[in-house]
Amino acid sequence: MKLSTWFGCSSWLPQYNREWLASDLVAAVVVTIMLIPQSLAYALLAGLPAEVGLYASMAPLLAYAVFGSSRAMAVGPVAVASLMSAVAAGQFAQGDVALFYQASVVLALIGGAVLIVLGILRAGFVANLLSHPVVGGFVSASALLIAVGQLGSLVGVSAKGETFYQTVIALFNNFSSINATTAAIGVLALVWLWAARKWGKQVLKQIGLKGLALEIVFRAAPVVAIVLSIVAVSVLELNSVRTVGTIPTDLPQLFFPSMELNGWIDLFVPAVLIALVGFVETVSVGHALAAKRKQRIDPNQELLGLGAANIASGVFGGYSVTGGFSRSVVNFDAGAQTPMAGVFTAGGILLATLFLTPLLTNLPHATLAATIIIAVLGLIDWHLPGMLWRYSKRDFAAYLLTVVVVLLAGVEAGIIAGVVFSVLALLAAISKPHMAVVGQVPGTEHFRNEKRHKVSMVDGVVSVRVDESLYFPNARWLEDALLEVAASKPGTKALVLQCNAINHIDASALESLEKIDENLHAMGVTLYLSEVKGPVQDQLASSHWYKSIQSRIGLTHLETVRLAKQNE
Amino acid sequence: MKLSTWFGCSSWLPQYNREWLASDLVAAVVVTIMLIPQSLAYALLAGLPAEVGLYASMAPLLAYAVFGSSRAMAVGPVAVASLMSAVAAGQFAQGDVALFYQASVVLALIGGAVLIVLGILRAGFVANLLSHPVVGGFVSASALLIAVGQLGSLVGVSAKGETFYQTVIALFNNFSSINATTAAIGVLALVWLWAARKWGKQVLKQIGLKGLALEIVFRAAPVVAIVLSIVAVSVLELNSVRTVGTIPTDLPQLFFPSMELNGWIDLFVPAVLIALVGFVETVSVGHALAAKRKQRIDPNQELLGLGAANIASGVFGGYSVTGGFSRSVVNFDAGAQTPMAGVFTAGGILLATLFLTPLLTNLPHATLAATIIIAVLGLIDWHLPGMLWRYSKRDFAAYLLTVVVVLLAGVEAGIIAGVVFSVLALLAAISKPHMAVVGQVPGTEHFRNEKRHKVSMVDGVVSVRVDESLYFPNARWLEDALLEVAASKPGTKALVLQCNAINHIDASALESLEKIDENLHAMGVTLYLSEVKGPVQDQLASSHWYKSIQSRIGLTHLETVRLAKQNE
Repeated sequence: MKLSTWFGCSSWLPQYNREWLASDLVAAVVVTIMLIPQSLAYALLAGLPAEVGLYASMAPLLAYAVFGSSRAMAVGPVAVASLMSAVAAGQFAQGDVALFYQASVVLALIGGAVLIVLGILRAGFVANLLSHPVVGGFVSASALLIAVGQLGSLVGVSAKGETFYQTVIALFNNFSSINATTAAIGVLALVWLWAARKWGKQVLKQIGLKGLALEIVFRAAPVVAIVLSIVAVSVLELNSVRTVGTIPTDLPQLFFPSMELNGWIDLFVPAVLIALVGFVETVSVGHALAAKRKQRIDPNQELLGLGAANIASGVFGGYSVTGGFSRSVVNFDAGAQTPMAGVFTAGGILLATLFLTPLLTNLPHATLAATIIIAVLGLIDWHLPGMLWRYSKRDFAAYLLTVVVVLLAGVEAGIIAGVVFSVLALLAAISKPHMAVVGQVPGTEHFRNEKRHKVSMVDGVVSVRVDESLYFPNARWLEDALLEVAASKPGTKALVLQCNAINHIDASALESLEKIDENLHAMGVTLYLSEVKGPVQDQLASSHWYKSIQSRIGLTHLETVRLAKQNE
Repeated sequence: MKLSTWFGCSSWLPQYNREWLASDLVAAVVVTIMLIPQSLAYALLAGLPAEVGLYASMAPLLAYAVFGSSRAMAVGPVAVASLMSAVAAGQFAQGDVALFYQASVVLALIGGAVLIVLGILRAGFVANLLSHPVVGGFVSASALLIAVGQLGSLVGVSAKGETFYQTVIALFNNFSSINATTAAIGVLALVWLWAARKWGKQVLKQIGLKGLALEIVFRAAPVVAIVLSIVAVSVLELNSVRTVGTIPTDLPQLFFPSMELNGWIDLFVPAVLIALVGFVETVSVGHALAAKRKQRIDPNQELLGLGAANIASGVFGGYSVTGGFSRSVVNFDAGAQTPMAGVFTAGGILLATLFLTPLLTNLPHATLAATIIIAVLGLIDWHLPGMLWRYSKRDFAAYLLTVVVVLLAGVEAGIIAGVVFSVLALLAAISKPHMAVVGQVPGTEHFRNEKRHKVSMVDGVVSVRVDESLYFPNARWLEDALLEVAASKPGTKALVLQCNAINHIDASALESLEKIDENLHAMGVTLYLSEVKGPVQDQLASSHWYKSIQSRIGLTHLETVRLAKQNE
């Protein structure tokens, strides 16, 4: 690894020019407007003071700019990671507020370190264990969990539960104590945001706005809700409405975790899950945006970039960050050319922290709850379950299991259940490959499945094709299957295994082939192999058994069948 | 499932005849002689009173005879399962002797129930997760652990440790308190058993013995050691030697576990591991013996048989049983035709329990330790590590990890580490399949890897072949890889993916193909598929995306390349 490959910015910083500067500045303005309410809202969702969301929206953007590989990525707090962080820190701190904050920061630090290590080892493939149905189910169920969890804040009652069920029950039980003023603000904000998202662009176009101006005004809809609700609370002196309160205007400080080693160990697994889920979203966004400009991202470089961003977040007292989907798309559409746009966005957030936060004291929680609800409902892919049901029942089962476990037992249990199920289901599929007894298609040199084609068989010679690499999950199946075929066809003298679909034979399968050879021999049947691929044959050559089977391996299947017949 | 398929005995009992009866009776005599010292020794290895080994050698044989499918299988206590049972029960009971016994029996009951459930669900494939290197490493390391663990009993010092290291240390620390008389008996027995195994058959043949008589005398070597050491202790009044003591001559009683639900839950995972390891050994023996007589065993029927045997063992106060390798081979060689031989063996053990046990009071532990050491050293496959090293570094790593973790952290940790490593390594291999840019071999219709063959390319059309099914572990790799190829060849207008080695496309891979299609399109490149297998195309047809790609799927690769060139 060359030094320059550690720094993603080496690919664009040397060519940085005035044209890019202008584009990046404009994009930064749009993203800053979008990011201010989001940082505050997601920090509350993560169970943290609002300013922590701002801290997580400065240093991480600088770190990503240095190490990341995607040009238009916008990192920062996102909904799902905030929920996961809240759950993990809550379970760890058991009600201790100071410890909760420590845990939230440590989650970012561990997650960042893990991502960097994976990046250095070029081991990003572990994120592949999060299959599409599992991620889809997880995000949809988490979004539902988040939306329901925010209903309490929206209408001014306390309704916190670790699971979906508990939250719904708490909501019902406390229904009578709704704060009407809060509810009015919350519902109005919700309707406004929903209408703005649905009709906003249309209306703005009719007014005559277009291009960048349209984009900025459209993205400012949450800002409008925030300003109006602050004004309402301040002017009407709505003291019963729960607000954000005083936000310190301090710059982010260096954070020194005072947690013992055992704490770090306890937080390891949730930190890894948060980091991997974030990585999957980041890479997915990165690929989509890069392709639009015929660029490429390097997933291992993304591990370094996102890892550095999380470390930077933690070092300055922020919490877990991710490359957000909608935010990055906005950044891209607004014209961001390089991660310098992120640097400028961080500057915008810094200015907001210094000068705007005093104005936010009267910002109602209900307004932020409305922005969260609208944001997360957009994350749910309503078509996915139907599509999975039609395409593959196994994938549908993985989706359903993940959704149900997330709702009943929480986010961590859900994602673990989904991954374990997917892996076991994959191993089960590999463990029972498709196998066919094949015969010669008359007049050709081709051998095809006897069940699908009219084929001719050679007396005493059975031909079998296996459509899967031979790995330990199917090694013993192979023993069962081949001995079964030989035993079911009396008079068999030779069995020829056509290996054209076998890309690997691992040590377990080698052992099984040896046993099959031996057991077939005991039954008076000789084993032959045909069409063994080059790399597979090279590996087989390093085994003892190869010496005894070598003379029974044929280049084409037809040749091998003829050889078997001759030797009978 | 028909009722008759539940009972393995339905395949032989109706045809049972006098000839089989004679053969089975003779085999039973040989196996009984072999089984008596083994049952006593393995019970001590499992940390249980000697008579529990006898209990585990009666009812299980009857249950296996009714439900099992292998004709010459001999079930009963074996070394590795005894060690695993001792470790699990020891960790659970924490020194409470009564609880230890309860736990040992409950392990058999749970293990039996799990095997039966797997058999009914026809889910024997889960045992496939125990790859050959993991089982090989596990058995070798366990054998070493057992042998070292028995050294204390062999020389009359106390030396118990949970790990290899602890046991060796304890042995050294207590070295000065060796009991010389015990050590003399132990070492003599060890030398005798070792010499008998090495030269016994040779010497007996020179004396003129052959056939069955030779087999019986040869198998009686441990009995000779036992008789001689009992005589020595009794006649010379060697009171300092630790002996088996009084063994009750009661028949096995029905056992009613008095354990709470939490206990059963705590013992679940070790019970499953013991049962699966036993199942793997049983199936492996069963296949080998069946093939010699051109018979077949059904692995799912073996699950029922071994499950029933374990339940029967537990119900009558015995512990975990397995189809033993050497014991079954002896049973087979001695001529056993059906599991009725096992029924007769159980009768033999019953007679021994009633009439021989009073004679065993003065049997020294050292003699039994010697029989265990000789038996387990035969389990170690000394050639395996070298063979794995040459054949596949990944499989060697799985082997080494299992051995090291078994020795350092114990049997359960070792097997779990091995399985997790194998699964992750397999997923890693699947996640980075072999991929080749292919070109046309001039003068043919074949397309081959451009790196290995002289091939001709079509301007603006890139052909790529992926040698693996598309599953979630490689779905995102596919996105990276195809976009990389397209980006690295400027002027590319079309990318044709040759799908002849793709046996499956799961929902994650489908999603990735859609994204690839979309992202390639954004880059100005059109995606084509060629040679999609029938079942894969059928499944694709149920997706939305199929409608848009349908016209870009070609039957042969050459056709598809021509189509792509036309459409340019």
